[in-house]
Amino acid sequence: MDVLRYLQKKARAVESEIDRWLPKGLEPDILARATRHLIEAGGKRLRPCLVLAACEAVGGRAEDALETAAALELLHTFTLIHDDIMDRDELRRNVKTVHVLLGEPMAITAGDALFAKVFEATAANARRLGMGGARAVELFDAISKASFEICRGQALDMLLETRADVSEEEYLHMVGMKTGALMEASTKVGALLGNGKPEQLSALADYGRLIGMAFQIHDDMLDVAGEIEKFGKPIGSDIREGKRTLLVVRALATAPSEEKRRLLGVLGKREASEAEVQEAIDVLKRTGAIDYVNEKARRLVVEAKSKLDVLPDSDAKKALLELADFVVKREF
Amino acid sequence: MDVLRYLQKKARAVESEIDRWLPKGLEPDILARATRHLIEAGGKRLRPCLVLAACEAVGGRAEDALETAAALELLHTFTLIHDDIMDRDELRRNVKTVHVLLGEPMAITAGDALFAKVFEATAANARRLGMGGARAVELFDAISKASFEICRGQALDMLLETRADVSEEEYLHMVGMKTGALMEASTKVGALLGNGKPEQLSALADYGRLIGMAFQIHDDMLDVAGEIEKFGKPIGSDIREGKRTLLVVRALATAPSEEKRRLLGVLGKREASEAEVQEAIDVLKRTGAIDYVNEKARRLVVEAKSKLDVLPDSDAKKALLELADFVVKREF
Repeated sequence: MDVLRYLQKKARAVESEIDRWLPKGLEPDILARATRHLIEAGGKRLRPCLVLAACEAVGGRAEDALETAAALELLHTFTLIHDDIMDRDELRRNVKTVHVLLGEPMAITAGDALFAKVFEATAANARRLGMGGARAVELFDAISKASFEICRGQALDMLLETRADVSEEEYLHMVGMKTGALMEASTKVGALLGNGKPEQLSALADYGRLIGMAFQIHDDMLDVAGEIEKFGKPIGSDIREGKRTLLVVRALATAPSEEKRRLLGVLGKREASEAEVQEAIDVLKRTGAIDYVNEKARRLVVEAKSKLDVLPDSDAKKALLELADFVVKREF
Repeated sequence: MDVLRYLQKKARAVESEIDRWLPKGLEPDILARATRHLIEAGGKRLRPCLVLAACEAVGGRAEDALETAAALELLHTFTLIHDDIMDRDELRRNVKTVHVLLGEPMAITAGDALFAKVFEATAANARRLGMGGARAVELFDAISKASFEICRGQALDMLLETRADVSEEEYLHMVGMKTGALMEASTKVGALLGNGKPEQLSALADYGRLIGMAFQIHDDMLDVAGEIEKFGKPIGSDIREGKRTLLVVRALATAPSEEKRRLLGVLGKREASEAEVQEAIDVLKRTGAIDYVNEKARRLVVEAKSKLDVLPDSDAKKALLELADFVVKREF
């Protein structure tokens, strides 16, 4: 598949750029290990691909966006490390999470260090291109605003966990911040670095936010219907953590009271048995929540793709269109 | 005292700027509370004062550096919130720490959110001044590099806690990163925003790093010899946490083996009694470590002040000279 090759080529360029910002020789050694651990364990490098493809899709050169592409993977990794602490998750990408491996203090510091590097790498990008002040400021502004939105989304996610009456609208608002904001920033800064026109920036930003939301909805779905080896983390974690995913929101809104009671009995029960978690998953299946959620993600992808109509045809545009489909078809 | 009035005036201007970046109406409300908690509890606003005074000391206008001055207080607050989690500290500025008040997940998120705002506020400053690309990039680069150094210092601090043979050189290296880097960045970005000459930037950066190191050494000293009401946190925390402060480093290097054994017996003992902690403090006093450390801090301040010789006389320069003295005379 041509698009896959296109993306793989992009992802390879990003790997060495990430290495440049997180060198193995970083001192102290334990910080190098802590910051590199999840990155070395794999990952789709979806956000860097979005940066580079968006840059090319507006007529820019992917090479001109490399540091920022790497930066957004660092930003993503920082959020994963801190999220894993907060959610007390022990496995990700089929390896131990950073706090389980190196302790919570080192994991907090590693996340902070990755976050700091985001802006150093971005500064290097702006310097290399000799960007003007206004555009450089726009670049930093987009990344810092997205970072803040992620935190707001994260805080809201925690608040919703304590409620049984979360609406679909509230969920989508939360997920737009928690996951949508970073994909939106990825395509936006890519377009910015490729010198895209305002309407192209805006279209790509919308596309990014929409696929980000679809990504999270599909991720929630994999948490209950995925395979652990492919998914890289235990199935049902969201249920044990009491997360108000769209699946749960939908089931709680539509299930008969008996089913609803059964689901609420397991939601947020950290020590729930496999059988109890399976029972909760069965409720989600029986109430049609899984079908509903799949359809919702699919529609977001259709909407996201339509945003790209303003772009001229190119390999990069083709890649973005296929990436949107990939987001809701992936098994990992 | 004129200088105090000068600084108080500066600090007041920063308060409303901080409010602008962390509005009380921030959604969700709990994130507003978590990010504002320590800031509302007080604090010396030392870093913003350094930014504004450095800006004026090179001939700039303090108003031109306001957003960045506020940004560096946000950056400082972020490090406090995360440090308190890592050190399991329960009190700061005479109030509960954020994780004790609102739980660890919210405290981690609040720190991250503050860190994100740092760059958003800085971007706004660069935009308002219409800064050129090269200078804007330098501004972001200085702040992100300092942030990364703080994390390196923090990681190193944790590593040193496990060793009994830490040298004074290692301690100073660590503390230069953990505390020096941010004060260095404060004076450097102030000078940058005031359009200072390269040699002025460099002198002010050196001054900042040196007073930062002196600040931390004095802070270590207050932890064993201060008064809880003024210091705002329990006396002896560093001892219970096993921190390799310069006091401890010096005592372990020079104390007779009997005294050394006594000190090591209490260091890092979380559940040590008041009497045990007092015994450790007595060892530090008997071995002359406290006098040694006070002298070391005083010398760093003398060196810091000498760096300012390149600056023309001004109220701002006078304030910076007095600030340097304040750093090792303060009781809070």
